Amino acid sequence: MKAVLITIGDEILSGNTVDTNSNFIAAELKKIGIPVVQIFTISDEISAIKNTLKSAFEIGDVIITTGGLGPTKDDKTKIAFKEFFNDELVLDAETFEHLRKLFEKRNRTHLLELNKPQAEVLSKAEIFQNEHGTAPCQMIQENGKTVFSLPGVPFEVKPLIKEKIIPFLAEKFGLNHIVTHTVSVVGIPESLLSEQIESWELALPKEISLSYLPVGNRIKLRLTTHGKNQQELDEKILIEIEKLKPLIGENVISWDGDDIVEILKEILTEKNLTISTAESFTGGELSKLLTSISGSSTYFLGGIVAYDYQKKIEILGVSAKTIQIKTVVSAEVAQEMSAGAQKLFKTQIALSTTGVAGPNSDEFNTEVGTAFYSIRVNDFEKTSRIYLPHFERNDFAKFVSQRVLQDLVEVLIKEKY
Amino acid sequence: MKAVLITIGDEILSGNTVDTNSNFIAAELKKIGIPVVQIFTISDEISAIKNTLKSAFEIGDVIITTGGLGPTKDDKTKIAFKEFFNDELVLDAETFEHLRKLFEKRNRTHLLELNKPQAEVLSKAEIFQNEHGTAPCQMIQENGKTVFSLPGVPFEVKPLIKEKIIPFLAEKFGLNHIVTHTVSVVGIPESLLSEQIESWELALPKEISLSYLPVGNRIKLRLTTHGKNQQELDEKILIEIEKLKPLIGENVISWDGDDIVEILKEILTEKNLTISTAESFTGGELSKLLTSISGSSTYFLGGIVAYDYQKKIEILGVSAKTIQIKTVVSAEVAQEMSAGAQKLFKTQIALSTTGVAGPNSDEFNTEVGTAFYSIRVNDFEKTSRIYLPHFERNDFAKFVSQRVLQDLVEVLIKEKY
Repeated sequence: MKAVLITIGDEILSGNTVDTNSNFIAAELKKIGIPVVQIFTISDEISAIKNTLKSAFEIGDVIITTGGLGPTKDDKTKIAFKEFFNDELVLDAETFEHLRKLFEKRNRTHLLELNKPQAEVLSKAEIFQNEHGTAPCQMIQENGKTVFSLPGVPFEVKPLIKEKIIPFLAEKFGLNHIVTHTVSVVGIPESLLSEQIESWELALPKEISLSYLPVGNRIKLRLTTHGKNQQELDEKILIEIEKLKPLIGENVISWDGDDIVEILKEILTEKNLTISTAESFTGGELSKLLTSISGSSTYFLGGIVAYDYQKKIEILGVSAKTIQIKTVVSAEVAQEMSAGAQKLFKTQIALSTTGVAGPNSDEFNTEVGTAFYSIRVNDFEKTSRIYLPHFERNDFAKFVSQRVLQDLVEVLIKEKY
Repeated sequence: MKAVLITIGDEILSGNTVDTNSNFIAAELKKIGIPVVQIFTISDEISAIKNTLKSAFEIGDVIITTGGLGPTKDDKTKIAFKEFFNDELVLDAETFEHLRKLFEKRNRTHLLELNKPQAEVLSKAEIFQNEHGTAPCQMIQENGKTVFSLPGVPFEVKPLIKEKIIPFLAEKFGLNHIVTHTVSVVGIPESLLSEQIESWELALPKEISLSYLPVGNRIKLRLTTHGKNQQELDEKILIEIEKLKPLIGENVISWDGDDIVEILKEILTEKNLTISTAESFTGGELSKLLTSISGSSTYFLGGIVAYDYQKKIEILGVSAKTIQIKTVVSAEVAQEMSAGAQKLFKTQIALSTTGVAGPNSDEFNTEVGTAFYSIRVNDFEKTSRIYLPHFERNDFAKFVSQRVLQDLVEVLIKEKY
């Protein structure tokens, strides 16, 4: 059972929009054991859509298209489907009723007539109603293939996938489980790591696959396998992970966690620690990262973005003299910022960042791409400098924020908090 | 001249990583007049890579692959290229020298031998050195096609594209300009907008294309054309935009700005206004959005993420009584938060957010997906409620943050600040 995704829309091809739908759909399909083997991103043109459907039929069993179903003239997916399946469009009473209710709820019944074509569907199609938009999801089953056509707006796609399509597919096909475990390694370059575990890697059972995934200074080793019995699959992988302990045990910060934020959550919750942030150039990225997961409110109490240097003095209590002597992008200012946050938010842990993300330098002519960050856990403090002149502004903030959390995990493990 | 991108890697297909390279490359190619007509996202398998290269040769003139070039065993692009181009791998002295310097700079010369295979390139290839990683970019020109093979790590890809490949392509092909103008419309649904400008749309010159792009409650109308003379192209589009003024003038918040953050920057800079934020469930997303562009430090002074409700009281001066009576997710708390930020950061404008992003409710049992936000400009204040129960946690924070900035732009325009 293999899936193919087709993303339709010039918005993605022109570089205006990042395609997040494919990522979401692939992750959801994976959970029910259907791997995505290819993603096509194509133009909103009838011929391109038809050609790609043809290619997708050759490689996949489940085909999911997103995009090209809005009420305006630049959306052509429905026509392409009609021609490809040699079908006709008919007004679907149930979909029209669904539309009517949607417009009533939004107090926009005057727009119903205008949106009537949205209720026209392929005569062969089975319909999954879209609770959050006007274009329904249509499904066609032909020659053993199952094809879904979805709208493109992510907040319509996600509930359709999660609440309707995934349950339908899981029910229809008695599916395999895919089991994944991730070992997170730090302090060792990829090439050396690969050498150190070479014999282990070569001896892995054929049904377990391994990937190396570098994220910042961390390398994730991901082991994946699939089959009918989840417990057996888990055990099979854990046996192999056990063998890694003597080889690279010292460098492992997590034996089974993928996201650094999740790894940190486990540690903070277990140790009952609270945390706060004081950010400058990361502009809120660090606090956003910490709060990106559910349950973070039990340990993350708050953060401050002291973007203007006066605010560092006024709110965080950084000394004006330190800024004058050391400049605002310095180890000393990072230290005073984390101390200020620890005091302001009354947390055990406080993190701070100060740097120049560019493209322009600051009032002190600091070199673009320079940053300092400070990690404070009770009385312990560690400051680090990072210099990455080739990063773009937002990538730099993201990279440093990830790095800060990774370093914090290392500190919490090594310093035994 | 058309481009095709090939993204190689199981990380994207499995839904673990969002592909941001394609977006970046497409946007850069567009600037020099090379449209991306298709993106293939494929597995890290030799046969898949070879088959896709074949398809790409049929539709594109410039083909760019990313991924699959690391030093570890799961990277297979180089072998696929070797077989596809019927070529052989040879050690490139210049690339090896580049590697040597890179490892010296990083104090890791002991790893040089291990990484030697990275200096093996196709004998037919021209090499663009990778300043930020070990795998070089290889270029092959064959049958009138130009094919580039790049590594997959975004911070290696971006400089290679921007500093080496784009200048090379712009030099090699005397290229067309692509000119785009974006009109931002609010307060009118897509279907009605489409009706109101129907006659205008139908009368557009054939060489100008139009797209509708909904972002939150804003619809962007994007007009695109291409040709040799940039000034002529600009004028041609501006004539058409002028005709929109009597049709939808009242609903337009920007006649030529794409990103709401950029639109806001223009207004704040022109009016010499400063801004601060007080966030709860958005967790820093709002301040991150404001600081995502260069130059934001002239008007954004700072923000606070008062995640814990005690911090709203202690740092922002929200009244404990208001929280007790109205709960923390209420119009009143939003108002007191923005007032608090205005005072704390001494800014003319202050924005606040409070809500429940889910998946779990808060200590007051507020319904998941409920949020209030407050916009304060000097003495003016506007509070709004938003209820979007079907959004995922991080999408909700993003959506609301975009909405807050959009509303602020509307306020600044309508209230004539």
